[in-house]
Amino acid sequence: MRHQITGFSNPTIKRLKSLREKKHRKREGLFLAEGLRILTEALDSGKTPRMLVVVEDSELHPLARKIEAATVAAGGDVIETSEAIIAKLSGKSNPQSIIGIYQDHPVPLEELDRSSANIWLVAQSLRDPGNLGTILRTGDAVGAGGLILIDDCVDPFSVEAVRASMGAIFTQKIVQAKWPDFQSWLRSGPGELVGTSLNTENDYQSVRYTAPTFLLIGNEAQGLPEDYEAACDTLVKMPMMGKADSLNAAVAASVMAYEVLNQSRKR
Amino acid sequence: MRHQITGFSNPTIKRLKSLREKKHRKREGLFLAEGLRILTEALDSGKTPRMLVVVEDSELHPLARKIEAATVAAGGDVIETSEAIIAKLSGKSNPQSIIGIYQDHPVPLEELDRSSANIWLVAQSLRDPGNLGTILRTGDAVGAGGLILIDDCVDPFSVEAVRASMGAIFTQKIVQAKWPDFQSWLRSGPGELVGTSLNTENDYQSVRYTAPTFLLIGNEAQGLPEDYEAACDTLVKMPMMGKADSLNAAVAASVMAYEVLNQSRKR
Repeated sequence: MRHQITGFSNPTIKRLKSLREKKHRKREGLFLAEGLRILTEALDSGKTPRMLVVVEDSELHPLARKIEAATVAAGGDVIETSEAIIAKLSGKSNPQSIIGIYQDHPVPLEELDRSSANIWLVAQSLRDPGNLGTILRTGDAVGAGGLILIDDCVDPFSVEAVRASMGAIFTQKIVQAKWPDFQSWLRSGPGELVGTSLNTENDYQSVRYTAPTFLLIGNEAQGLPEDYEAACDTLVKMPMMGKADSLNAAVAASVMAYEVLNQSRKR
Repeated sequence: MRHQITGFSNPTIKRLKSLREKKHRKREGLFLAEGLRILTEALDSGKTPRMLVVVEDSELHPLARKIEAATVAAGGDVIETSEAIIAKLSGKSNPQSIIGIYQDHPVPLEELDRSSANIWLVAQSLRDPGNLGTILRTGDAVGAGGLILIDDCVDPFSVEAVRASMGAIFTQKIVQAKWPDFQSWLRSGPGELVGTSLNTENDYQSVRYTAPTFLLIGNEAQGLPEDYEAACDTLVKMPMMGKADSLNAAVAASVMAYEVLNQSRKR
């Protein structure tokens, strides 16, 4: 159904705005995604919004009309509201004109089918939502199966992470797991765990990776803890020609992921 | 000289805080950099702060003492102040305990020695300071000479860009240029201009790049304008196995830059 809402203090608007905070997302099992591009990606991946927010009195783009129809068909509400309220929900001064509210979709580790992809990304205590979203986006690009979040990672369903994922939040499987549980699961089937490290002489291009390859990405400031490095089957390093000894976490993950993809393209 | 400043309304603090804004940075030719790691990188690259801000009554790290000594030797002031004021300057709730104020150092295009490096990064209308800083960081890692900013890019000396560069703001040459000027300069000497594009069938690994390679990175949302693509010597694309048709700008630049570096490593 279509509703018009004009007040900031409307309970629905307040509830949607609360989804910008992790605890409310967690309680409701819902998250916000903005913009026609990301919402179209969602629809193409079979995800329909529980609720759709659009700018009032605006001519909807044909793609937006398609998303609206899908929302209504699935029993969801469509809310027309002001640009100011949409900006409030989005947290951006110059927001997209369409916001979808989706059910979050973490996958339990034991339900993951590791044979469904050759590459899996694994992040440990990743703190930056932009990095997390960017890694999801790269995961989609290299045909990875999903992202396994170990320990205390930032929430993948945060507005910033969803935005940076450019829709990959809907195409990549998202798993949250404790390190010991991940290790047991990993070792219960085929899979090579690969970490990047300063404590190795293995050039990342000199190693032949075997599928499924699990690429372990460490925390932005600390890198991987020693015992996590020790648990890897393979440690590699990328050439660093300058003064710095590390890359941005999303960049390192992406350069590694493309190397693994490129090797499989040459087979 | 060492001063203690405790008030938010102190004129020096106000002036330093104003450097968070582009117009004040531009007027003063100064910018802020935070954290021992980045400030040490600066010192190693021969850049001494004009002014140094440290937390009062704290035991300085030996590296910080070295930076302090260099600052004083160069005639700069050292300011001791509260953590609250440092947080205000940094814009982060959990700031680093040391901030340096540096002279900005854009290089005029005509002073750039293109033969000094095999890789140069060129960004067009890049809007995100995190992406810009991350590209600088990758530039350092691949041994690039610097970053040439075309058209309306975000300020490389913004606090966010400097932070994301992890010190590469001090090791990479920074050029700001108009597109026609860049084109004339580029064609006045050797150099291959390479763009990533959806409008090509050239796989990025199937092309042999010749040094110096200028990697042209487009705006985050729009990519490269048509006539910029037309001006490239080579257009390439990276394999995209998923639903998305593009990577994050800093990721795309990094995957490309590592390919160019890797080719030169194999020669």
